[in-house]
Amino acid sequence: MDQKDEKPNCRSLVYVHNPHLDALKEDFLYHFSLGTGTHNLPEMFGDVKFVCVGGSPWRMKSFIEYISAELNLEDPSSDYPNICAGTDRYAMYKAGPVLSVSHGMGIPSIAIMLHELIKLLHYARCTDVTIIRIGTSGGIGLEPGTVVVTKQSVDATFLPRFEQVTLGETVVRNTDLDPSLAEELLRCSKELDQFQTVVGNTMCTLDFYEGQARLDGAFCSYTEKDKHDYLTKAKEAGVCNIEMESSVFAAMCNLSGLRAAVVCVTLLDRLKGDQLSSSHDVLHNYQLRPQVLVGYYIKKQLKAKSQRS
Amino acid sequence: MDQKDEKPNCRSLVYVHNPHLDALKEDFLYHFSLGTGTHNLPEMFGDVKFVCVGGSPWRMKSFIEYISAELNLEDPSSDYPNICAGTDRYAMYKAGPVLSVSHGMGIPSIAIMLHELIKLLHYARCTDVTIIRIGTSGGIGLEPGTVVVTKQSVDATFLPRFEQVTLGETVVRNTDLDPSLAEELLRCSKELDQFQTVVGNTMCTLDFYEGQARLDGAFCSYTEKDKHDYLTKAKEAGVCNIEMESSVFAAMCNLSGLRAAVVCVTLLDRLKGDQLSSSHDVLHNYQLRPQVLVGYYIKKQLKAKSQRS
Repeated sequence: MDQKDEKPNCRSLVYVHNPHLDALKEDFLYHFSLGTGTHNLPEMFGDVKFVCVGGSPWRMKSFIEYISAELNLEDPSSDYPNICAGTDRYAMYKAGPVLSVSHGMGIPSIAIMLHELIKLLHYARCTDVTIIRIGTSGGIGLEPGTVVVTKQSVDATFLPRFEQVTLGETVVRNTDLDPSLAEELLRCSKELDQFQTVVGNTMCTLDFYEGQARLDGAFCSYTEKDKHDYLTKAKEAGVCNIEMESSVFAAMCNLSGLRAAVVCVTLLDRLKGDQLSSSHDVLHNYQLRPQVLVGYYIKKQLKAKSQRS
Repeated sequence: MDQKDEKPNCRSLVYVHNPHLDALKEDFLYHFSLGTGTHNLPEMFGDVKFVCVGGSPWRMKSFIEYISAELNLEDPSSDYPNICAGTDRYAMYKAGPVLSVSHGMGIPSIAIMLHELIKLLHYARCTDVTIIRIGTSGGIGLEPGTVVVTKQSVDATFLPRFEQVTLGETVVRNTDLDPSLAEELLRCSKELDQFQTVVGNTMCTLDFYEGQARLDGAFCSYTEKDKHDYLTKAKEAGVCNIEMESSVFAAMCNLSGLRAAVVCVTLLDRLKGDQLSSSHDVLHNYQLRPQVLVGYYIKKQLKAKSQRS
C-alpha cells in the first residue's frame, strides 16, 4: 500500500466557517433548488470525491457523459438527469464519485454556486474532495489550444489577491491554488501526450471586453498599442491566460479546505487578436482538452486508490 | 397628434463608442452566436423598440409569451424559438417590437450580454429603444412583493457609481437611470392598482452572501447585529432593495444612449431574514409583478404611438 498521499486516519472535511448555520432549522440552497429539509444530502452526495465545475451547462453535461464512459460507470439506460432541474440558475450532474456543476460567467455567478456547493458538501459530510474548474480562456503568447493549469490567480494589476466586499468593507483573500495538484495535472498531461500544457498565472477580470483590453466591445477608449502594452506587461508578470472566475474560486476553496485546480484551454492568442478565428471543429477540439486531462487524472487517482485498498 | 414625447425628425440611435469596430470585416457576437457576417441583423432586429432583460432564461421565455398575448401578437402555432440557440450562454426571444434576453447572474455576466446587445442594436440600426431590466431582489424595510423602480444604483458604500477596470485602471461611471421612465412606470403601477410600487435606490453587490450581509453563506465572520447595522445604514442612505446587476446596466445604458429602467420585485425583507420563507405560489406571483408592470407600460406606449400615427 502506497501511503504517500493517503492519510487513512485523517480524512479531510469540507469546512464552512459560519457559526450561524448551526442555528438554522433547515437550509435551502436556493440557487440549486436543494435543501437539508427536502433532500437527503448525505445519501445523494456523501460519496463525492471529485467536483468539476465550468461555465456552460452543456459542457458540464458533456463532461459527466465523458467521465462516466472513461470510468466504465455508464448505464446505457440512464440520461444523467440534471439534479438542479428545479431551477435554471445552475445545472448539476453526478456519476459515481464525480459531480459536475455549471457556474455561469463571472466572479459573482461562480461565488453564489460555490457558497451553496461548499454547504452541500459539508451537509453531505464529504471527505477528501478535489475540485477542478475546467474552462476556456484567452492566452497571452501561447499557441491556441494550449492548456494552462493555474499557479496563482492574479487581478487586473497582476497581484495575487481577491477583494471580497463584506458590509461595505474590502477584505483581501489569498488566490493560490494547490501546487501538488497542479504538478500532478502537468504530469498527467505529459503521460497523455496529446496537447501542450503549462503551469502559470491566470489573470481574472470582471469584464470580457474593456476589462480584458479587447478592441471589439461596444465601448473602447484605448488604442491598439495601449492594448498590446498592457497584455505584454501581463505576460512579463507571468500571466499565461485570462478568464473570469479563478480568483474567487481559489479564495473560496482555500477557505473551505478544498484541494483545488483551475485548468483552462486557451482559445486564441490575445496578442494576435480578439475574436475567435479558428474553425468550429478546431474550437470544439480545444474545449475538450481540459476534460480529457481532468478525466485522465481522476481515472488515475481512482485506479491508485483501488490498488491501495 | 401628441408630440410631447415624440421627436419625429430626431430619432435616437443606439450608440457604440468604439472606432475599432469600423475596421472589422465582420463582427461575431460570440456569446449570442450571432454575427454581421452570418446573420442579417437589420432584418432580424431592425423593428425592436423595447428590450427586456432578466437573469433567468425561463423567466425571459415566459415574458415573451406573456407580452405576445398582451399585445395580441400571438401566433398559436409558434413556439418562440430561442434566437441564441447556438450557445447556452444567454437565451433571446422576440415578439414584434419586443426583445427578451437573459443575462445570468452578476455584473460580469450582464456586462458581456450588454456589450453584444448594444452592438447588435447598433448593427440593426434600431432607433428609440427603451430597455428595462425585470428582476428579483431583497428588500430593505419593504413588504415582500413590493416592486422597486430604481432611481440610482449604488455600490456597497451607498455611492451612485460603477467602477470599470480598463487596462488595470479604474474608471468611475454614472449609474443614474432615466427619471421620466421611472415616473411613467410608477404612474402605470397606480393605474394597474395590483401591487405596491416605489421609486428608490438599489444597491448592487458583487456577491449574494457576504456581499449582501447574509448570515447563511458558507462563510460569515460578522454578527447578526453587524448585519442589521449595515442594512439599517443602507436604508437610511435611501436603499430600497439589493440585487447584483443594476450598476453596470445603468452605466452601459447611459453610455449608449439607451433609455433604461430597472424594475425588481422584493422577494423578502432582509431586515427580517435571509432565506425565502414565502410559499412557492406566493413567490411565483411576486416574480410575475415586474413583467405585468412592464407589459402594461409597453402596451400603453404602443397604443399611444398608434393613436398618434
